[in-house]
Amino acid sequence: MDGDTKTMTFLQELQDEPATLDDILISCRATLKYAIKTAHPRYFNQLSTGLDMVGLAADWLTSTANTNMFTYEVAPVFVLLEYVSLKKMREIIGWQDGRGDGIFSPGGAISNMYAMLLARFKMFPEVKEKGMSSVPRLVAFTSEHSHFSIKKGAAALGIGTESVICIKVDESGKMIPADLERRIVEAKQKGFVPFFVSATAGTTVYGAFDPLIAISDVCKKYNVWMHVDGAWGGSLLMSRRHRWKLDGVDRANSVTWNPHKMMSVPLQCSALLVREEGLMQNCNQMHACYLFQQDKHYDLSYDTGDKALQCGRHVDIFKLWLMWRAKGTIGFEAQIDKCLELSEYLYNKIKDREGYEMVFDGKPQHTNVCFWYLPPGIRYMEDKEERKKHLHKVAPVIKARMMEYGTTMVSYQPQGDKVNFFRMVISNPAATFEDIDFLIEEIERLGQDL
Amino acid sequence: MDGDTKTMTFLQELQDEPATLDDILISCRATLKYAIKTAHPRYFNQLSTGLDMVGLAADWLTSTANTNMFTYEVAPVFVLLEYVSLKKMREIIGWQDGRGDGIFSPGGAISNMYAMLLARFKMFPEVKEKGMSSVPRLVAFTSEHSHFSIKKGAAALGIGTESVICIKVDESGKMIPADLERRIVEAKQKGFVPFFVSATAGTTVYGAFDPLIAISDVCKKYNVWMHVDGAWGGSLLMSRRHRWKLDGVDRANSVTWNPHKMMSVPLQCSALLVREEGLMQNCNQMHACYLFQQDKHYDLSYDTGDKALQCGRHVDIFKLWLMWRAKGTIGFEAQIDKCLELSEYLYNKIKDREGYEMVFDGKPQHTNVCFWYLPPGIRYMEDKEERKKHLHKVAPVIKARMMEYGTTMVSYQPQGDKVNFFRMVISNPAATFEDIDFLIEEIERLGQDL
Repeated sequence: MDGDTKTMTFLQELQDEPATLDDILISCRATLKYAIKTAHPRYFNQLSTGLDMVGLAADWLTSTANTNMFTYEVAPVFVLLEYVSLKKMREIIGWQDGRGDGIFSPGGAISNMYAMLLARFKMFPEVKEKGMSSVPRLVAFTSEHSHFSIKKGAAALGIGTESVICIKVDESGKMIPADLERRIVEAKQKGFVPFFVSATAGTTVYGAFDPLIAISDVCKKYNVWMHVDGAWGGSLLMSRRHRWKLDGVDRANSVTWNPHKMMSVPLQCSALLVREEGLMQNCNQMHACYLFQQDKHYDLSYDTGDKALQCGRHVDIFKLWLMWRAKGTIGFEAQIDKCLELSEYLYNKIKDREGYEMVFDGKPQHTNVCFWYLPPGIRYMEDKEERKKHLHKVAPVIKARMMEYGTTMVSYQPQGDKVNFFRMVISNPAATFEDIDFLIEEIERLGQDL
Repeated sequence: MDGDTKTMTFLQELQDEPATLDDILISCRATLKYAIKTAHPRYFNQLSTGLDMVGLAADWLTSTANTNMFTYEVAPVFVLLEYVSLKKMREIIGWQDGRGDGIFSPGGAISNMYAMLLARFKMFPEVKEKGMSSVPRLVAFTSEHSHFSIKKGAAALGIGTESVICIKVDESGKMIPADLERRIVEAKQKGFVPFFVSATAGTTVYGAFDPLIAISDVCKKYNVWMHVDGAWGGSLLMSRRHRWKLDGVDRANSVTWNPHKMMSVPLQCSALLVREEGLMQNCNQMHACYLFQQDKHYDLSYDTGDKALQCGRHVDIFKLWLMWRAKGTIGFEAQIDKCLELSEYLYNKIKDREGYEMVFDGKPQHTNVCFWYLPPGIRYMEDKEERKKHLHKVAPVIKARMMEYGTTMVSYQPQGDKVNFFRMVISNPAATFEDIDFLIEEIERLGQDL
């Protein structure tokens, strides 16, 4: 059998008997061969792209150490590195002396859910023992363009998706604070209790930054927990040129920030930062006596496991910490600035180019550039509805062709009443101006006959 | 500065400027030097120990591929390997033709929480939109010796820890089915709705297996979802000699099974297996149109991301799959059987040895061996209370000394009215009879003066 025929055995049942070492190596080669090349500078499909060599080395070391974050006893170094890194991140957010709390969790959706859990516990600590039947009807607020994890979290926590009120956004995708206030007042009039506002710093599709200062004023006025979902945009805090987009983030009660996105830390690396110290512990602790013995011979505050819903917790910190050491804050800043520069280059290149329409006006706030490509055949269609119907089918076909040729990958989606459009994002510092040029040429090559 | 002085710089603030490559290498060396050697055959501290070389290689390849499990589009190979592995695990559980559903999640606690979420949704699908206020008071049942994640899950899901009813166990730590039935009847009489029973296959401390057949009869009679938390004990299904301990597991609605424990797959690797197909998708899906486009050019059933609460999901499957290929089922069986043999050796060695008392009678069911070591000074104390008070302090001191000498590590805890005792567990196939002998000698060496 040659390599490719062997590959076909991939999906056979797992066997009772061991395979040979040769078979194992063939499996590894085939796995890499058929894997999507997420480190390729022309892979623009997700918010997490690229492959940092120091981050990779750190992940390999992490695998070798093969331990668990729940106690200091089994992960003394990693627990301390998590401590210093979270403190540094809180300083960058702007909380005094980096005070507060935090944890690395398995992804932004879980970080957001943890934030919602904390907000509920802060307002109604009895909910931990007595459940939702002991509290009034709670409502959460987030923008129409926010990430779906807010609704997933509300469904899981027994709050229900109908209690997540979607606040209107302006044309560029930013939450409208006046609509937030209106909906909070409305909810209170109905007897509901507003407990949680999730503002987004860097929305998934448009890359919009909600106006945090105005939102924090509303949250303060009505005494509602303010969360900032900066899974995608939080990393801009590392850039002196771009951090103004998150002005007001220091007023938040909690912040999600995923270094595995814009900072190119290998997957996964997501942090939840919390302003109030001790709350996470009180909210989640169950005092399991087989793990968190109270008569240990070291400072028990380093046993972080009871802060989370998870028991065992993967070591996600070393990748981030070692990359930070290797690059310094200025290294992260440089790569973030570069990605934003590339997206501005793309925007300038296509905004007036024939065959392109921007989904919304104005320069990109993050690296997201949202646009339609109109093949010549539909460019001058007069029937608006007919044109829309055709346009909706363009991006999926171009994307499918990109994947068949294996040249590049970029995401598309509809949003609201807008038919399928491309969403370009750049988070790989290995991308160049030439890669952006290539993308445009490739879209035109693959789409001109549609 | 020499290496050790440099190490002290570990906990300094992260810097703006990059460190040198030499500094980075020193950091890596120091991290490994001060790490706990979890692969050492005398590290018995946790349920996850050892380091499998094929598993490590697979984890390194996974890091290199640096992708995300949410869509087939970005992880085609890993999604398919997850599919075949979950199917194989369901076959081993005994579900017809391996039918059903499942997912790899970040640890057993999350897997258990996912099961509870599914059970609630199955009984009251409206809870997803309307929250807990739309449903009657739900109650869950699990044994006094079960893992604390069941209560954590109930707290998070808005059910509340007071609605988790702890069922009595017998002297060896197994749930008493008659007490389960009594408590279910009692709850129904109060107007509560029993919706979830979590039986444990391999409790954390005693290693006990709840009687699954009797429990399934009760669940069936009262129409309650039966979950089996086999995070620790599920792997015994791979052993023809030991799988009888899980007889009845095929009657469960869901099963947690962590290959990162008894199968020595590198951290993390935890599976939730679910008997009913489609339920996970219905329970958790939010149809995010930027990720799960419905007009893709491939079979959308391979986009597994909407089955979970997480959005991005780490690739945990390749380690398990490659190890399975390399060892075959019989390889896993051999290493599991060996660990159980070692624990029986330990039990036989200490059960009648002077200075030892077993916490409960009878041969270990799993590799857990629970015992007190009584230093000569307290061995013949007449005052029972005084003796107990002294004994409580013995294990923590011996453990602290073990860590100071760096010779071995083993866990201890109190349980109920039982003062601190050692809990030995063996999950590293590299451990030998000599390592067990060493542990006994070391406990006696470090504890004889207490």
